[in-house]
Amino acid sequence: MNLEQIEQHLVFGAKQTRYRHYANTLNSEMTFTLFLPENPNDQVISLIWWLSGLTCTDQNFSQKGQFQRYANEQNVAIIMPDTSPRGEAHDVSDWDLAQGASFYVDATQDPYREHYQMYTYLTEELPELVYPLIPNYSGKESIMGHSMGGHGALMIGLKNPERFMAISAFAPITNPSQTPWGQKAFEAYLGDKDWTSWDATSCLTQATVVPPMLITQGSADEFYEVQLEETNFVSAAKAKEANLTYQKVAGYDHSYYTIATFIEEHLKFHKQYI
Amino acid sequence: MNLEQIEQHLVFGAKQTRYRHYANTLNSEMTFTLFLPENPNDQVISLIWWLSGLTCTDQNFSQKGQFQRYANEQNVAIIMPDTSPRGEAHDVSDWDLAQGASFYVDATQDPYREHYQMYTYLTEELPELVYPLIPNYSGKESIMGHSMGGHGALMIGLKNPERFMAISAFAPITNPSQTPWGQKAFEAYLGDKDWTSWDATSCLTQATVVPPMLITQGSADEFYEVQLEETNFVSAAKAKEANLTYQKVAGYDHSYYTIATFIEEHLKFHKQYI
Repeated sequence: MNLEQIEQHLVFGAKQTRYRHYANTLNSEMTFTLFLPENPNDQVISLIWWLSGLTCTDQNFSQKGQFQRYANEQNVAIIMPDTSPRGEAHDVSDWDLAQGASFYVDATQDPYREHYQMYTYLTEELPELVYPLIPNYSGKESIMGHSMGGHGALMIGLKNPERFMAISAFAPITNPSQTPWGQKAFEAYLGDKDWTSWDATSCLTQATVVPPMLITQGSADEFYEVQLEETNFVSAAKAKEANLTYQKVAGYDHSYYTIATFIEEHLKFHKQYI
Repeated sequence: MNLEQIEQHLVFGAKQTRYRHYANTLNSEMTFTLFLPENPNDQVISLIWWLSGLTCTDQNFSQKGQFQRYANEQNVAIIMPDTSPRGEAHDVSDWDLAQGASFYVDATQDPYREHYQMYTYLTEELPELVYPLIPNYSGKESIMGHSMGGHGALMIGLKNPERFMAISAFAPITNPSQTPWGQKAFEAYLGDKDWTSWDATSCLTQATVVPPMLITQGSADEFYEVQLEETNFVSAAKAKEANLTYQKVAGYDHSYYTIATFIEEHLKFHKQYI
């Protein structure tokens, strides 16, 4: 099988395993981390996808997210993919483009389109590898993420509302086609076409069904004003009468310490629906 | 004041701050991280020292220890020093010697003695900087650590039993003069003299008063057999009728995931005495 275990840890009685595999969609070797709860009573287990932000790998959340105790209590599995293809000869000169910065889209432009097919990887190739690794898998999924990964969670969740039963995000980019990080990435990956089909605010406007959504944003987040401002997304949610809880938390910043503080609340939110 | 704030995060309502300062004892610029609980009822706050293991800085525990929620609940401050002086021109060719590997001793041998005075730094210089940063400081202290930092906690705690009211360690090196990492370090820092005054097992044998001690060791720890074996230390504790709880935890390894899982128990242990 195209799946090599490269690390495994016992944590709060649960198992966290890191794998390496070759992703055909991406023409790239990839890693991912899977958390499986202890599940002493052999119940069914649902799956939450975690998507990380710019510069991250699958290990930022696994090492710094402080989710393990709560995910074990909620008896959910968590899949943490890497944030982009790796190790290939494309532009890596910028921290906010290419490696670590896929924005979870399918690129149409050279030199990215050969490898940067993260949307297809996450929605088609990776699930087929992950589902069989979950004992007693319930078939129920939801999705969450941070910053660029918050954009990924909202965009992927809203494009697939029949599949993802809840969406949550920490400090997400909600309207990338209107903010600098997103504009830079979309121009590189998509050229001048098709931005709206990858923008969370547009996806929300176009959605026929909208899963329940929870967003937590720190008021001391250094990226809030320029990159993460929520007006358009919240307006689109209101226009749709969507089930969105958007909470500002005073004094919290863009770091994993904010995620650690509120991850229990997010996992309980997800667990209601999966 | 010789103290520059370089990072601050709100986490579980508490504040975690990273500082830089020039350490006269070490002739070196140093960093440390201080966790202060939210303390809404303005109670007195006691201080726990955390010492990290080989290759670590002050940020390994602060980012991966998952202690913040529990330290806040126990209303204790945690000081996380770096593990060695930095940035000077001494041997850094080995991962288990010099930078990141001080063993918390005062070196007597060249080229280390100019900078590697970590014992004096931790017991004399750093406390004078840290105490004034703790509002309502109770004056009560205890000490804990991991691996090489577990050795540091046991050794420093046992040499200063009137000061440190409890000691705990995860996977500590308990008898460094008899195990390879410790022998390599002691030979480099101390030459052929004075090893017993820095070895936790010898310190325990020589101690007139022994604080209560808790040690947690994972049974799947890859360093256990060669570096961390406890027979001599446990025998010395028995001979002394010391208050030592030595617990083996099945399936847990040498990583921070083990610390994360059992840190709440360790903090509750300390809180009984401080």
